[in-house]
Amino acid sequence: MQQFDAIWINANIATMADNGQPYGAIENGVLAVKDGLIAFVGARSELPSFDALATPLYDAAGQWLLPGFIDCHTHLVYGGNRANEFEMRLNGASYQDIAAAGGGIKATVAATRAASEEDLFVLAKDRLNTLLAQGVTTVEIKSGYGLDLATEQKILQVAAQLDLHHPVSVQKTFLGAHALPAEFSNDADGYIEAVCQMLPELNKLKLIDAVDVFCEGIGFSVAQTRKLFTAAQALGLPVKAHAEQLSNLGGSALVAEFAGLSADHIEFLDEAGVAAMAQAGTVAVLLPGAFYFLRETQLPPIALLRQYGVPMAVATDLNPGTSPLCSLPLMLNMACTLFRLTPQEALLGVTRHAAKALGLFDRGCLVAGQRADFGCYAISQPAELCYQFGVNSLKQLIINGKEVRVASV
Amino acid sequence: MQQFDAIWINANIATMADNGQPYGAIENGVLAVKDGLIAFVGARSELPSFDALATPLYDAAGQWLLPGFIDCHTHLVYGGNRANEFEMRLNGASYQDIAAAGGGIKATVAATRAASEEDLFVLAKDRLNTLLAQGVTTVEIKSGYGLDLATEQKILQVAAQLDLHHPVSVQKTFLGAHALPAEFSNDADGYIEAVCQMLPELNKLKLIDAVDVFCEGIGFSVAQTRKLFTAAQALGLPVKAHAEQLSNLGGSALVAEFAGLSADHIEFLDEAGVAAMAQAGTVAVLLPGAFYFLRETQLPPIALLRQYGVPMAVATDLNPGTSPLCSLPLMLNMACTLFRLTPQEALLGVTRHAAKALGLFDRGCLVAGQRADFGCYAISQPAELCYQFGVNSLKQLIINGKEVRVASV
Ligand SMILES: [Zn+2]
Ligand SMILES: [Zn+2]
Repeated sequence: MQQFDAIWINANIATMADNGQPYGAIENGVLAVKDGLIAFVGARSELPSFDALATPLYDAAGQWLLPGFIDCHTHLVYGGNRANEFEMRLNGASYQDIAAAGGGIKATVAATRAASEEDLFVLAKDRLNTLLAQGVTTVEIKSGYGLDLATEQKILQVAAQLDLHHPVSVQKTFLGAHALPAEFSNDADGYIEAVCQMLPELNKLKLIDAVDVFCEGIGFSVAQTRKLFTAAQALGLPVKAHAEQLSNLGGSALVAEFAGLSADHIEFLDEAGVAAMAQAGTVAVLLPGAFYFLRETQLPPIALLRQYGVPMAVATDLNPGTSPLCSLPLMLNMACTLFRLTPQEALLGVTRHAAKALGLFDRGCLVAGQRADFGCYAISQPAELCYQFGVNSLKQLIINGKEVRVASV
Repeated sequence: MQQFDAIWINANIATMADNGQPYGAIENGVLAVKDGLIAFVGARSELPSFDALATPLYDAAGQWLLPGFIDCHTHLVYGGNRANEFEMRLNGASYQDIAAAGGGIKATVAATRAASEEDLFVLAKDRLNTLLAQGVTTVEIKSGYGLDLATEQKILQVAAQLDLHHPVSVQKTFLGAHALPAEFSNDADGYIEAVCQMLPELNKLKLIDAVDVFCEGIGFSVAQTRKLFTAAQALGLPVKAHAEQLSNLGGSALVAEFAGLSADHIEFLDEAGVAAMAQAGTVAVLLPGAFYFLRETQLPPIALLRQYGVPMAVATDLNPGTSPLCSLPLMLNMACTLFRLTPQEALLGVTRHAAKALGLFDRGCLVAGQRADFGCYAISQPAELCYQFGVNSLKQLIINGKEVRVASV
């Protein structure tokens, strides 16, 4: 007789695996967990016999189970906020006025440098709790508001502490090459050199799961990005980039050349870049929140990404400058409404494809052997999670096989 | 010695009244309530002496108090949902395909007719709870998914029941003239006649606070709208309209001619219409959620509305077809991001101007004599409520002078 820790019955299961059905759906099925993993998913008739008296049984009563959502691109550890510059701009201030008032990313860097690790932890925990209540069970967190070794380390330590002390699983990305700090004005080459020197220090402390860069005219060049990626590769660290957000510089193709995890934003990506990503298995991370907040009009090349079979992920890009929107369900709606993704594509984008964007292959699908991270939703069909927004339909959230209490559930 | 029921001290108060400060702000002030009303707002030094032992004192500790939010345009009582047609459209189905599959407003009318009053109440209550947790203390609810007397009555009765049994205050709007029901195909004049006959029936039951109409090429003509408004006026009922959403038909000017409460949507409103509204004191209700969801590109004439001093309100338009977005805070962000309202304009739009759009003058500002409906927010400045979205900063919600427990507070 097989042992399970808990079993869900009468569940519609959007496995998000390839089983020939939309959403990989198994209707009126059973899901069993054991030791934090999924032990069985399928028809009740195929469930091995088990000790009915010793095994907790949950009746999903026709509700839908989906994999725990994965927000694969966030900058959620930061100090301060930029409400002031938001208001100034809407009152007619120019970018020069705002820069003169100390605004822009410099403001966030100053506030983040000034904040204690404890303060940053408390602020970030509020954001993580909000995501958790939406069914998010894994997030990526980038550094990049320190731009010096001590503060980059502080941010990554907060991310590591969150991973330890919060139910959400955290992946840590080093984004030292986010912007040019005042200390290196007009010396981007010098700063990239400094970032390359931070890499082994932070890696020694086990604070880096991946290395990211803002590859853009107003960020770092392809040559500088190559230098950083080479240093990351030497340490065995996977790479990714903020690329093709404002212009088609070639950052995405460079990520592909390094067999990187993902190219993110990519509104201006061309067909050659798409082909390179497809070849390398690099994920396209779509960030509709930043597209919306910046009132961008250039759409990412969705049709080409589909044609070449590039997996598309969807994330919040949660950050104080260009996407102060702490809601992955809102991104599901925006991915469909603004980018015309189908609900299935959008949901793959916050589950299986988001896991791939993080290089994680133990989650993102509801199949035997994967982590038992899933939500139970009071919906009639998965598309509802993309179509409507606001009323939280999450009724139960399981992480590592254990039920997690969240505010709104 | 003066008697108060409770006092908030060390509060930054965005009164939203005209006091010469942005947001009508009183920094580090005091707010006292008595018998469900605001009894005092001002500097602590000016607070009359009171019985310190008998009066509960709340230390706001620098948090901000704002008037309870007012969502002045919703259709939140409905059956079913339209996730299916949302998904069909994103998979390439045409409007004909969707109509053939029974989609569109007909689907919602069928589901709403089929639902019991109890079922509709439960569904609507979930939506109202979601709004409440966002700091909303008054909502308007329209009928319009019945299109026959019995179902219109059922919807308005649900709204009346919510007003009685839910802490949020509800205003009931009769929108029989929402669409042409199948029973009257090709006979809009006949249906308007029928709607005019429903009016006194429903009014007798005290189910109508205002009368609304969809005045549009695909809705009802200006002549038909005039007929309805005349019937409403004869009963002493105030009018409003969904107007100028898809074309400049003149519905807003007609609302103004009838000294109506509001013209809503108004993307295609021209200067003459704006002038007429200004003259009549008619409020412009902006609905950025529908603008976003329909991917509209024609912006409402914000500059003209400012120039003529037309008060602007902001609402969710919560409905299953064109704005399935149950979030007034999201509308604050969208009003600023998409329509370029200033944060002060957006917040006036969900407080004082929203109250005016409903003809309610007992709420919307934090001044003595108004209803004691207010939220206490952990923010550094009011603009934060427009700038960031997702993390709920509402820490305490007071309705009629009494604290209301909401899920996320
Ligand atoms: Zn980013
Ligand atoms: Zn409406």
